[in-house]
Amino acid sequence: MKIARFSHEGLISFGIIDDDEIVVLKGDPMFAGFDPTGQREALRDVKLLAPVIPRSKIVGMAWSFFADAAEQSAVAPGEPRFFLKPNTCVVGPGDSITLPAPSHDVHVEGELAIVIGKITRNVSVADAEDSIWGYTVANDVTARDLQERDGHLTRAKSFDSFCPLGPVIDTEYDWTGLTIESRINGEVFQTGTATLLKHTVAEMISFLSGVFTLLPGDVILTGAPGRSASVVDGDAVQVEIAGIGVLANPVRRA
Amino acid sequence: MKIARFSHEGLISFGIIDDDEIVVLKGDPMFAGFDPTGQREALRDVKLLAPVIPRSKIVGMAWSFFADAAEQSAVAPGEPRFFLKPNTCVVGPGDSITLPAPSHDVHVEGELAIVIGKITRNVSVADAEDSIWGYTVANDVTARDLQERDGHLTRAKSFDSFCPLGPVIDTEYDWTGLTIESRINGEVFQTGTATLLKHTVAEMISFLSGVFTLLPGDVILTGAPGRSASVVDGDAVQVEIAGIGVLANPVRRA
Repeated sequence: MKIARFSHEGLISFGIIDDDEIVVLKGDPMFAGFDPTGQREALRDVKLLAPVIPRSKIVGMAWSFFADAAEQSAVAPGEPRFFLKPNTCVVGPGDSITLPAPSHDVHVEGELAIVIGKITRNVSVADAEDSIWGYTVANDVTARDLQERDGHLTRAKSFDSFCPLGPVIDTEYDWTGLTIESRINGEVFQTGTATLLKHTVAEMISFLSGVFTLLPGDVILTGAPGRSASVVDGDAVQVEIAGIGVLANPVRRA
Repeated sequence: MKIARFSHEGLISFGIIDDDEIVVLKGDPMFAGFDPTGQREALRDVKLLAPVIPRSKIVGMAWSFFADAAEQSAVAPGEPRFFLKPNTCVVGPGDSITLPAPSHDVHVEGELAIVIGKITRNVSVADAEDSIWGYTVANDVTARDLQERDGHLTRAKSFDSFCPLGPVIDTEYDWTGLTIESRINGEVFQTGTATLLKHTVAEMISFLSGVFTLLPGDVILTGAPGRSASVVDGDAVQVEIAGIGVLANPVRRA
């Protein structure tokens, strides 16, 4: 099932994608269940929004992919490592990624995002996937020059618009089949599959739930394969995960 | 005015401190204004809670105090630096700071916390104090050994219970008169005054609002003077800011 959050005639609603239509729901199905209003809207008539606004955390997994099969067989994966992004980073499909004035080297990265569906604390790897509400597509934007200047990730990852999410949440996606492709102005700059991930989705959730309580609506960015790419004013970025969809965002200078 | 959030007979409310009583309010005054229910409760009959649960960000200012007057006259303050803590870190007065299993060197630090009262983006230093709702006392807890192992602050600062806040929010506090004293089992380990702060409160808010939109309820920890101190199971920590109050929390092993 693919769940969208959208605006239509000034109202924000949730719905289930049904071909080129949306079955409108009475509330946020994460909290209110799947309760249709009886209305349907044509997809082309609505504006899709970020399918979730985290109430607590956006966690970004860092260095989560092996570079290649040779590294994978030579190097132990180690402990997962992560950073935080504030929820004020989130924008939706079609919204601009705004290049902030103090940076001149903003990078984009396409990633699979896990959306947490229930309160989760100290969960075992075996039980961790029960905490997943679904998956969406994310663009983890970073001001690379500020990262280098600061010597750490926080400011570089935290600017408004630095976490596009969407277009939908897929509640049945199988991450083991992940293929991701990221493009700038149609040119592919990143591709990857699940095979080079250092940790399973369940291992990530279990590890993080030992640090903090994961809440419904929390988002975990699973990390990007290969090299990120810098963008400039006027670029068009697309991140595609087969089976979930394409997250497209224009880039503009503040 | 001193605002408390408290539980009484199973209900959570906000109120204004009036000597040894609380004037109960109809909602959260940050959003609903100051609208008394007509009830008063004795302070001794209620449990004070964290006076705010941030809806978006807890920002911690790092290296925000000069070590002493000699450093202050010799070194430029530089850009403010910060990290993020998730809102799942927040506990209230009297709640336990829980030592997480993977750490054996947890440090506490007493800090003045700014509570933001309105949506704030790219505010000038001159206008920044208009965004302040009030001030409270914070304990910025860190797993120092994990910070060193990870080479960055995120995990070390993010465990549940690692941000005690309270006991109240003072809406009229003058930070320029800040005196802070932190104690473990009655023994003072940190003292400081506003004179050695590298940046004014207005400069901190203005800088941060150029990175992200500050939302009502966001909390900025202004940083601790001098050295932090490690705690062990059974310790009692107190952070006192004259004019706001004493934030007291016991320490226990998970």
